[in-house]
Amino acid sequence: MRTIEWKSGVVTIVDQTRLPNQTVFLKLICCDEVANAIRTMQVRGAPLLGAAAAYGLALTAYYSKAKSKEKLMEELAASAGFLKETRPTAVNLFWAIDRVLDKARRIRGGVSVAKKAVVVEAQKIAMEDVKVNWKIGDHGSSLIDEGDIVLTHCNAGSLATVDYGTALGVIRAAWKQGKKIKVIATETRPLLQGARLTAYELLKEGIPSTLITDSMVGYVMARGMVNKVVVGADRIVKDAVINKIGTYTIAVLAHEHKVPFYVAAPRSTFDLNRLTDDVVVEERSNEEVVKFCGVRLAPEGVAVFNPSFDVTPFRLVTAVICEEGVFAPTDLCELSPVEG
Amino acid sequence: MRTIEWKSGVVTIVDQTRLPNQTVFLKLICCDEVANAIRTMQVRGAPLLGAAAAYGLALTAYYSKAKSKEKLMEELAASAGFLKETRPTAVNLFWAIDRVLDKARRIRGGVSVAKKAVVVEAQKIAMEDVKVNWKIGDHGSSLIDEGDIVLTHCNAGSLATVDYGTALGVIRAAWKQGKKIKVIATETRPLLQGARLTAYELLKEGIPSTLITDSMVGYVMARGMVNKVVVGADRIVKDAVINKIGTYTIAVLAHEHKVPFYVAAPRSTFDLNRLTDDVVVEERSNEEVVKFCGVRLAPEGVAVFNPSFDVTPFRLVTAVICEEGVFAPTDLCELSPVEG
Repeated sequence: MRTIEWKSGVVTIVDQTRLPNQTVFLKLICCDEVANAIRTMQVRGAPLLGAAAAYGLALTAYYSKAKSKEKLMEELAASAGFLKETRPTAVNLFWAIDRVLDKARRIRGGVSVAKKAVVVEAQKIAMEDVKVNWKIGDHGSSLIDEGDIVLTHCNAGSLATVDYGTALGVIRAAWKQGKKIKVIATETRPLLQGARLTAYELLKEGIPSTLITDSMVGYVMARGMVNKVVVGADRIVKDAVINKIGTYTIAVLAHEHKVPFYVAAPRSTFDLNRLTDDVVVEERSNEEVVKFCGVRLAPEGVAVFNPSFDVTPFRLVTAVICEEGVFAPTDLCELSPVEG
Repeated sequence: MRTIEWKSGVVTIVDQTRLPNQTVFLKLICCDEVANAIRTMQVRGAPLLGAAAAYGLALTAYYSKAKSKEKLMEELAASAGFLKETRPTAVNLFWAIDRVLDKARRIRGGVSVAKKAVVVEAQKIAMEDVKVNWKIGDHGSSLIDEGDIVLTHCNAGSLATVDYGTALGVIRAAWKQGKKIKVIATETRPLLQGARLTAYELLKEGIPSTLITDSMVGYVMARGMVNKVVVGADRIVKDAVINKIGTYTIAVLAHEHKVPFYVAAPRSTFDLNRLTDDVVVEERSNEEVVKFCGVRLAPEGVAVFNPSFDVTPFRLVTAVICEEGVFAPTDLCELSPVEG
């Protein structure tokens, strides 16, 4: 099942805030609705944010009444500005927006040609994401051995991408090759993407998995219950991997227990001209931590710190798995430029 | 406010499963009710479990119709057996039960003398706990400096003890000495004792505090937001501190970031003739992880691992604070025996 689909000016998404209890499909028909779905995390996951943002621009182009390419470009720029305000950390969002804008800008022909080109480019981004994930799965599965117990954090599965997944793509590929592996999934507070989404995907796939709270990672490693860690990434900069809050804690524990720590992410996540300090780590509402389904978990008036991401320095990362292979993180800069 | 109180054959406790949204007092009038309150964690916290178990025996003695001391001892042994089945890890429970039984066994006189002695010994255990916590606070506060940001896990406050608290006792004492400190409290999944109980105690006391999810500990340490860690203990054995799940993860992170890691616990928590492998780490129901207030957090059919405690080896513990002072963990064995 695709997590996001375009059909004749309608973008259909699965509302990830309602899973696993309800499977609700949302039909989005303008860029504002896409931006809202991103902001409220009805769509989430770095690669999926790229595809969603591209489709947001595609909706603007599809319904545009612009009579000139110049006017269309103004409308696209406005939509792009709006989309870029939604979430600051995952770079795929910015990458996809810039790629679509660039395509529209460079295409020869009039406004109708440009409108079509935007839609086609968005669909290309979505389709490429699936193929890239297959490749990541293929490369990454070589690192997974028969009998491994693989720990993953948050959700870097098909629900975080257009399909297949990055970290879960690696697990899925190893499983499909017949390797008898098991997975430990962390619940991933505050929004429980591990409990709600990763556990759901693994159950559907029939891959044996066990859910733990985030606080149990140290204990399961100390008991020798984990052989490998595979996580996704929201942005990989020159010196570190920025990913869901809790990733750094797991990386420190993996290092302490000599457990290999792998990051699986497409090149659209790479931002290798920037350093950690150049990146805004999103802080979200206190409500995410102190309430669940309207019930308070903590007393009224309590102060909360709620960063959505953390920073794992390269020294704790065994390797990065991308569509081109498996690399030491410090070697990523040497990859040849991505073809447009 | 005392967390547990005895008055004329009625033990009053605060139902800790209902805090902070509701303050409900429960009146317990037989040992079975006490055992049930322990099992369901309406009372929890290692030192408080000791006092609660002692009061459970006091209820058995108080209402006993035994005509001989021998018969009373049989009834007490049955109650003790029942209480010891409730929770296996915190040693204070076993320590308090054995202390009360021993007192009853050794006292000279008939059945009515023995009955009274049981009640008096239980009250003595409860009163001593408060004094011991004051001493722990006094010794521990010398380790806390003006301006410190102290991270604590779970709840080792007045709600985990008869009053005042162990780890929170240290924080409380430093605050009362006028040291301008701040506290970071981890929410402590699955049962959220940090969010529900520690945040509540700190707010009531007016000590500035910030709540984080367990997954954020690494990030706040990496950002230099933590100067000290102080936690409680459920049992201290010859080679390690056994405490609420997540403690070991925090200890590894503290070591990585050169943040002192202190354990505050009364000597009734010490079990220095045993090693880690001799201790049963309680595993509780899956429901604690996959449900909140009746709402499922994870899909039906998911496997869960839910250990309540983990094991922190002494090499990660900077010092243990007990009623006798501050000690390197390896020096605890050299303390003179506790007077009965």
